[in-house]
Amino acid sequence: MIGGGKDAFIGAIHRIAANMDGQIELVCGALSMHADLAIQSGEMLYLPKDRTYTNYEEMFEAEAKQPADKRMDFVTIVTPNFAHFAPAVMALDHGFNVVIEKPITFTLDEAKQLKKKLDETGLMLLLTHTYAGYPMVKEAKALVKAGHFGKIRKVYVEYHQGWLSKLSEREGNTQAAWRTDPSKSGKSGCMGDIGTHAAHLAEYISGQKITQLCASLNVVVEGRLLDDDGAVLLRFDNGATGTLSASQVAAGEENALKIKIYGEHGGLEWAQQEPNTLTLRWLDKPAQTIRTGSNYGNIESSFAVHNTRTPGGHPEGYLEAFGNLYRNFALTLQAKLNNEEPKPEWLDNPGINEGIRGMAFIENVVNSSKSTEKWTDYVV
Amino acid sequence: MIGGGKDAFIGAIHRIAANMDGQIELVCGALSMHADLAIQSGEMLYLPKDRTYTNYEEMFEAEAKQPADKRMDFVTIVTPNFAHFAPAVMALDHGFNVVIEKPITFTLDEAKQLKKKLDETGLMLLLTHTYAGYPMVKEAKALVKAGHFGKIRKVYVEYHQGWLSKLSEREGNTQAAWRTDPSKSGKSGCMGDIGTHAAHLAEYISGQKITQLCASLNVVVEGRLLDDDGAVLLRFDNGATGTLSASQVAAGEENALKIKIYGEHGGLEWAQQEPNTLTLRWLDKPAQTIRTGSNYGNIESSFAVHNTRTPGGHPEGYLEAFGNLYRNFALTLQAKLNNEEPKPEWLDNPGINEGIRGMAFIENVVNSSKSTEKWTDYVV
Amino acid sequence: MIGGGKDAFIGAIHRIAANMDGQIELVCGALSMHADLAIQSGEMLYLPKDRTYTNYEEMFEAEAKQPADKRMDFVTIVTPNFAHFAPAVMALDHGFNVVIEKPITFTLDEAKQLKKKLDETGLMLLLTHTYAGYPMVKEAKALVKAGHFGKIRKVYVEYHQGWLSKLSEREGNTQAAWRTDPSKSGKSGCMGDIGTHAAHLAEYISGQKITQLCASLNVVVEGRLLDDDGAVLLRFDNGATGTLSASQVAAGEENALKIKIYGEHGGLEWAQQEPNTLTLRWLDKPAQTIRTGSNYGNIESSFAVHNTRTPGGHPEGYLEAFGNLYRNFALTLQAKLNNEEPKPEWLDNPGINEGIRGMAFIENVVNSSKSTEKWTDYVV
Amino acid sequence: MIGGGKDAFIGAIHRIAANMDGQIELVCGALSMHADLAIQSGEMLYLPKDRTYTNYEEMFEAEAKQPADKRMDFVTIVTPNFAHFAPAVMALDHGFNVVIEKPITFTLDEAKQLKKKLDETGLMLLLTHTYAGYPMVKEAKALVKAGHFGKIRKVYVEYHQGWLSKLSEREGNTQAAWRTDPSKSGKSGCMGDIGTHAAHLAEYISGQKITQLCASLNVVVEGRLLDDDGAVLLRFDNGATGTLSASQVAAGEENALKIKIYGEHGGLEWAQQEPNTLTLRWLDKPAQTIRTGSNYGNIESSFAVHNTRTPGGHPEGYLEAFGNLYRNFALTLQAKLNNEEPKPEWLDNPGINEGIRGMAFIENVVNSSKSTEKWTDYVV
Repeated sequence: MIGGGKDAFIGAIHRIAANMDGQIELVCGALSMHADLAIQSGEMLYLPKDRTYTNYEEMFEAEAKQPADKRMDFVTIVTPNFAHFAPAVMALDHGFNVVIEKPITFTLDEAKQLKKKLDETGLMLLLTHTYAGYPMVKEAKALVKAGHFGKIRKVYVEYHQGWLSKLSEREGNTQAAWRTDPSKSGKSGCMGDIGTHAAHLAEYISGQKITQLCASLNVVVEGRLLDDDGAVLLRFDNGATGTLSASQVAAGEENALKIKIYGEHGGLEWAQQEPNTLTLRWLDKPAQTIRTGSNYGNIESSFAVHNTRTPGGHPEGYLEAFGNLYRNFALTLQAKLNNEEPKPEWLDNPGINEGIRGMAFIENVVNSSKSTEKWTDYVV
Repeated sequence: MIGGGKDAFIGAIHRIAANMDGQIELVCGALSMHADLAIQSGEMLYLPKDRTYTNYEEMFEAEAKQPADKRMDFVTIVTPNFAHFAPAVMALDHGFNVVIEKPITFTLDEAKQLKKKLDETGLMLLLTHTYAGYPMVKEAKALVKAGHFGKIRKVYVEYHQGWLSKLSEREGNTQAAWRTDPSKSGKSGCMGDIGTHAAHLAEYISGQKITQLCASLNVVVEGRLLDDDGAVLLRFDNGATGTLSASQVAAGEENALKIKIYGEHGGLEWAQQEPNTLTLRWLDKPAQTIRTGSNYGNIESSFAVHNTRTPGGHPEGYLEAFGNLYRNFALTLQAKLNNEEPKPEWLDNPGINEGIRGMAFIENVVNSSKSTEKWTDYVV
Repeated sequence: MIGGGKDAFIGAIHRIAANMDGQIELVCGALSMHADLAIQSGEMLYLPKDRTYTNYEEMFEAEAKQPADKRMDFVTIVTPNFAHFAPAVMALDHGFNVVIEKPITFTLDEAKQLKKKLDETGLMLLLTHTYAGYPMVKEAKALVKAGHFGKIRKVYVEYHQGWLSKLSEREGNTQAAWRTDPSKSGKSGCMGDIGTHAAHLAEYISGQKITQLCASLNVVVEGRLLDDDGAVLLRFDNGATGTLSASQVAAGEENALKIKIYGEHGGLEWAQQEPNTLTLRWLDKPAQTIRTGSNYGNIESSFAVHNTRTPGGHPEGYLEAFGNLYRNFALTLQAKLNNEEPKPEWLDNPGINEGIRGMAFIENVVNSSKSTEKWTDYVV
Repeated sequence: MIGGGKDAFIGAIHRIAANMDGQIELVCGALSMHADLAIQSGEMLYLPKDRTYTNYEEMFEAEAKQPADKRMDFVTIVTPNFAHFAPAVMALDHGFNVVIEKPITFTLDEAKQLKKKLDETGLMLLLTHTYAGYPMVKEAKALVKAGHFGKIRKVYVEYHQGWLSKLSEREGNTQAAWRTDPSKSGKSGCMGDIGTHAAHLAEYISGQKITQLCASLNVVVEGRLLDDDGAVLLRFDNGATGTLSASQVAAGEENALKIKIYGEHGGLEWAQQEPNTLTLRWLDKPAQTIRTGSNYGNIESSFAVHNTRTPGGHPEGYLEAFGNLYRNFALTLQAKLNNEEPKPEWLDNPGINEGIRGMAFIENVVNSSKSTEKWTDYVV
């Protein structure tokens, strides 16, 4: 693991997600760019001293020399956005598969270079678009794909948080500090941080790609350096249209990612904060509620079932969704090592292509927001 | 009553709403432009034969000659949009107050003329933006106005229906037929029919006026003559921004009008289908649920209380909200007749100004949708 | 109308419910036992002076002499429980049909005498078990009856309010005063007032009759004279079992009547505070949500449809449910006057038999609560 | 770990819960009473061969001889109920702390003996009443304890499942088979399996102990050997009353554990299937919604905060609640090993006393159900 030291947020989440299923063990780390903190964090996590590194270059070199059965199989990069690309490239160069936080890189160009490097090395990359790991998101995608709703016409997605309602980056909130700093976070704040999740979810479930957009980004809190809010009109390749709104100043909201998709015959609704419920509505019959682990009553559910650990009514949450990404990555990796065919359920995991689209989304919304033209083509 | 004969939808709703509180009695009507139907409808409603008219011109002339204590106090116009203006003007010319379905007229220009006529005659007009009659909408407005949320920053409103998911106007659905016919409905279908409600609600609760917008309207169902779907980015006069989406092809949705508004300290959420619940969220304290008739625990609730008939837990609905418009109109009218001061709670009813803004909304979204420029100034 | 003067609660509700559909007109009243109040109330309700009576005896005598086309068709009795029986008998003796608030009488014996009188006179009686008027309750009953759930096994019903959490009857609350006074209310407080509603709903939807019960009533608030809380174990005639709990000291609850019924293949859930939603759960397929006015997708809904005024998504509430009782009563009465066959949907209205079972329920729970034996046979 | 081999349900849950926080490592196991299965299961879990045992006696003896830094710190027993006591005693005799599934033993007497053994050895025992591990359950308990609701008056708890709606124990369902078999499960089926959870939760949150009960258990599915359904009237030591219902034949229900508690000033509601929301209702002010990880706005939340891993809006579920039990057990154990004072938050974990009350609950409901007397004293 690179980054994710003592006081980091997402590193701890990655470790829980990876631990959960007993398939993955943390064997080494360069947990902070501050040597002291890296060492303390290693101790806290029961890492052996000789595999607690103080920078990632050192780690890759040392680990590459470990014997195959001891060597780490992949590295997780949980540093701020600006520090994703270099360690990812170096990992691949040393033969390590990569798990990386979204957005995948600092710029679209880096993302494209990373794809080239992956193609060259034949190694694997997991991008942690966590929300794609929820069973009911898998089920939603399967229902759309199987054609239950007919042609998709509308996609509404919103991702509303309230945690940046004040100028917290000036009040000692370190999360807020780097995420609102263009030199660490990139061209966009809110759209890069959570808009990319929303855009990914919209494309993932609907099976459609955004082709044009009309964006308006806002800096709501005075003194902030990056957008903390925005809305986007969307056009998709099959002719569907939609809206995407993302905000970090929706005071009082927690992590309210919600999506509604409608086709000719009906629609679906899913909300991340109650993730075990998927609502289906129909033109000519009663609405249905699909629940994680329960009474699916149709044939689309193999992806949902594979990503569920407990029987219906035992709520699974964010950490399990996150764990599903890791578990599917580990299962695919193992299959690859054993020269076995990975199952389709394992392969349905976000990777480099989703990473490139995420970076393109950021570029495109920022460009559109600056333009006085209504519609901007979505360029990748 | 003009229009609202046997098979009409909204006329029956108006009658229930007007009847409900025992303050208003239907005394005469020109209930259809077809003489037969007008007469049959009159019988069905127990109208005396001599006050069952076959056209409104006749009605106004005859009723104007009735003695003051028998004469109708106001007329309700529930014809399709294209037939609002002429009877409204004639009513005012004959000294009758007017209740009118939204959108108020066929064009913005007619609406402005109607305002002039009202100013000249000193008579009253009620525009039935029903959703402003709900107690929890009143409470929401009061809470915003009292400053509980601080400066308003975001307004999200959506109005999703699914009833036009097919080309029903060609399959004998008379409601669908006139509402999708530009010669009867006006320049816009979906935005005129339900977008206007959403825009009104946004301005009503937030206390802000739309100043700029960026609209994109769609004809989703092939063969349809007017928009059946659309989305609008909004800018308000205090600097707040927002989105409005309206659709009649959100298959499986009933009448899903929902609004979320956020300020510096918190936000509110209301959904018309569960109208007795108003959710308040706060930056620094637990979310609260305000319920019609119950435990308000604050001092903003006189408007909500006045518009509630039953104790908490006895759900009131759409018809009661509609009835509130009529009741407040009747109370104000009565006060006026008695030379008394109407209460602020009675006067908080949509009228000509809201009608003009509604027509302006239609003009502006249609113009913006045709434009390649992103932002259009909201011209009234 | 007898009772229901200026400051009464339920009288006003009855008038709204009766007015709503324009089929019923209030023509006379003995609105209070205090002459002054009776007269003031009559004025407030625009009653003619000569049909504003100061006691019901006078009213029945005078009205019986009116010509048939002017005479009232039925009388509504909305006095406290102890004053139901005498006016009901006198009404029937004078040829008037009767609408009466629940519980129907003061004692079970009175209820039985009333039945006898109804049989003799051939007149009609409506008992306002309002909750049976909701469309989704009708739908629930129809689904059970059609066998969708198989044999019914479990019935859980609860009715929780919080309004008697303090000793309000000593603090000037007149509603609380008579409802907790055994000389006005009868043998039971909470069970008589709301337990009877819960028991009626359980039998109405399940189609089963209670045959044995085990009750425990409590006086929770010190100084109160009647039970304000209680719970009952139930056995039904088909072998199903269940629980009923009723409380008026569930602090913070409004009017939380909820029912869940399960059979071999699935179950249903309905909650009065969100009355337009009926949830169906199934052993082997996804849960379904039936909504008033929408997409039923099955053949059981004629009773629900008949009792609905607006399209799906326009919420109907308590007053509409109440209005349905009146509307069905009026439709049946009219059919009878016209020698026509009333429709099954009109006849599905609570009457004398439900009234007798309600009084029996009160007797039986009070007896059971006093007994040290676990089970008491439900005696009628 | 004892039990929990390849095809077992709850063993896998325990492992995820224990793994999650990276504090606990599975080092050895006697995972099945079938040698083959035990060995296969050990391989599947990456256990070293020499610490994969085929029976627990062997395991305890071998492990006791391991050096202190390699020896297991505690053993988890996840066998069917009848096989809890013997290995627990043997574990304690060999110096190992114990984690045990509920109900703690086969009989009340065994539970009492186990307490004696614990007192003698000074070792620790964790009983996995999982639901006590949810942050919102901790918060509920803290709010009651701090007196926000005043004196507690009512406790309603229900635990409804539908998975035994058919005679599944005869159709190859192994879970159903042992849980409905008196020789494996004990005196009670449904009440032992889930009624004990409900009773524990009621006492845990309310802070009150059951002193009397009136139970009625049912065998609903013909041919079943133990109760699959039941209801209990409850009396608590402070004078509060309540109801408990448990069913495994509520067809269509998943794992619907719900609790409502009311005091003089308000009440709370929590439902396990949406565990991150705690609803508070108040006599005189709006209802509040407390959410895991968010905006508590009061001072009772240290127990909730300690048991939460992610920020508000990142739903935690059943596995995290389960993980909290293990984490608190591990933290306490570690503190003990380090001679440090464990924090109150760590000690708030179910143990032997809750185990004894659980067994007493089973005895008492079974006895009460057989009795014709209404009330049975709750004997421990």
